[in-house]
Amino acid sequence: GTLDLATAYVAVKAAIEKCEQMGVKMNIAVVDAGANLVAFARMDGAWLGSTDIAVRKAKTARFFDMPTGDIGELSQPGGPLYEIESSNGGLITFPGGVPIRNADGAVIGAIGVSGSTVEDDHEVAMAGLGAVQPEQPEDGG
Amino acid sequence: GTLDLATAYVAVKAAIEKCEQMGVKMNIAVVDAGANLVAFARMDGAWLGSTDIAVRKAKTARFFDMPTGDIGELSQPGGPLYEIESSNGGLITFPGGVPIRNADGAVIGAIGVSGSTVEDDHEVAMAGLGAVQPEQPEDGG
Amino acid sequence: GTLDLATAYVAVKAAIEKCEQMGVKMNIAVVDAGANLVAFARMDGAWLGSTDIAVRKAKTARFFDMPTGDIGELSQPGGPLYEIESSNGGLITFPGGVPIRNADGAVIGAIGVSGSTVEDDHEVAMAGLGAVQPEQPEDGG
Amino acid sequence: GTLDLATAYVAVKAAIEKCEQMGVKMNIAVVDAGANLVAFARMDGAWLGSTDIAVRKAKTARFFDMPTGDIGELSQPGGPLYEIESSNGGLITFPGGVPIRNADGAVIGAIGVSGSTVEDDHEVAMAGLGAVQPEQPEDGG
Repeated sequence: GTLDLATAYVAVKAAIEKCEQMGVKMNIAVVDAGANLVAFARMDGAWLGSTDIAVRKAKTARFFDMPTGDIGELSQPGGPLYEIESSNGGLITFPGGVPIRNADGAVIGAIGVSGSTVEDDHEVAMAGLGAVQPEQPEDGG
Repeated sequence: GTLDLATAYVAVKAAIEKCEQMGVKMNIAVVDAGANLVAFARMDGAWLGSTDIAVRKAKTARFFDMPTGDIGELSQPGGPLYEIESSNGGLITFPGGVPIRNADGAVIGAIGVSGSTVEDDHEVAMAGLGAVQPEQPEDGG
Repeated sequence: GTLDLATAYVAVKAAIEKCEQMGVKMNIAVVDAGANLVAFARMDGAWLGSTDIAVRKAKTARFFDMPTGDIGELSQPGGPLYEIESSNGGLITFPGGVPIRNADGAVIGAIGVSGSTVEDDHEVAMAGLGAVQPEQPEDGG
Repeated sequence: GTLDLATAYVAVKAAIEKCEQMGVKMNIAVVDAGANLVAFARMDGAWLGSTDIAVRKAKTARFFDMPTGDIGELSQPGGPLYEIESSNGGLITFPGGVPIRNADGAVIGAIGVSGSTVEDDHEVAMAGLGAVQPEQPEDGG
């Protein structure tokens, strides 16, 4: 299965509402199971350079089915995935991208958020995720 | 002035409603006055390859402040702008992108649509435009 | 609002005068609010490789509305924005790029300078900025 | 020899004055003997997409030491240089770029102009050229 536009919009809307609560301005991207862009929104006044980063975070999270920040821990100098960022036309491996799963735990897409600190970015991505991802199976899918 | 996210959403929504009436599936992109992406939506089942095309149509329409198809008429073999498509990292010069103007006639952004025939693409782009562009000054801005 | 060509020229001229005082040769680029190039000058004998860097510094400073060096402090190994340079077609995150604000504190463009040490580059960028940026509001805009 | 920044500025200034007389808004680029950018200016309200084109016209004119339009006549379908535009990261082969020669007829740089019809573009480029190029030797250099 793959995420549809209606689901992507729910995630984007929830992310924007979270931003408004937090007083931050973000770029928000959602990709489907094929890692292809489904929906994107840049809030008024959000960083122009974060458009590309939000899209890359969403793609990176789906490329490897894990939060982007998990990859970044492995891509440091001396780490097992050093310089993985240079693959796929440019990955983003700091926090703000998370995969979206269905009720069976299968990845159906991902959301990527960029525009503030990486902690804020991740928090907003989790808010978007929370609005669309059903409770996960105990084995983590 | 430049187009904001709320305006972009109105254009995207109107474009999607037009698609549903026509029975087509499209990718729709909106850029601001700086030719930077503001909003994007890919309808369920729309061509994956049209995501990039929709974004490039919107950018191309803002790059030259005219409908993309107007450029394509000039870029044919023997035409004055032959091979202009190779500039700017890749232009799209067939119909489906149109600039969005404010009440004074100044360009504040553009909408790009891709996913069907170029006639359909242009019709959907015009529906998106019609939802957000005020009546133009007689001199055309 | 966005920076116009006359303002860009004032910034470039002030930057060049600063270079002449310092005895350095620089590439100087100015972008507008949309991060699009407005003016560029390469002083006689300045590094050829710094043309691209000056333009990327100006764009990077506008992409994130902060001095380029501030981003570079966060993008080091182990830092929160590690490898952000691979986004946006290539960022430059060492000093020499600074945003330009209007009297209300809103970013209207940026200047990027490259051709010497990063300390010199930043000093020249600040000279360009100083010639065009009005006093800022106390809250920093 | 190669063109210096002072000469480039004279060419850009003359081109802008010509634009103001003609009532057009242009992007103007000057490259040196190495085909590297020396000076660039985008007039207020000129097409954003013409920045890249003006730079490519200047480079193309110096790459082949002839007016860009001359190359375009050879690059048409069936012509001897068909699709030469895909070389060098993207050439522009319609009018608006001309080489700049010294008193001996040697090419020392080029000017590229974009922002209106190709006839206007070429006329403005020739105005820029006329301000800096000395009378040519009878044998054409």
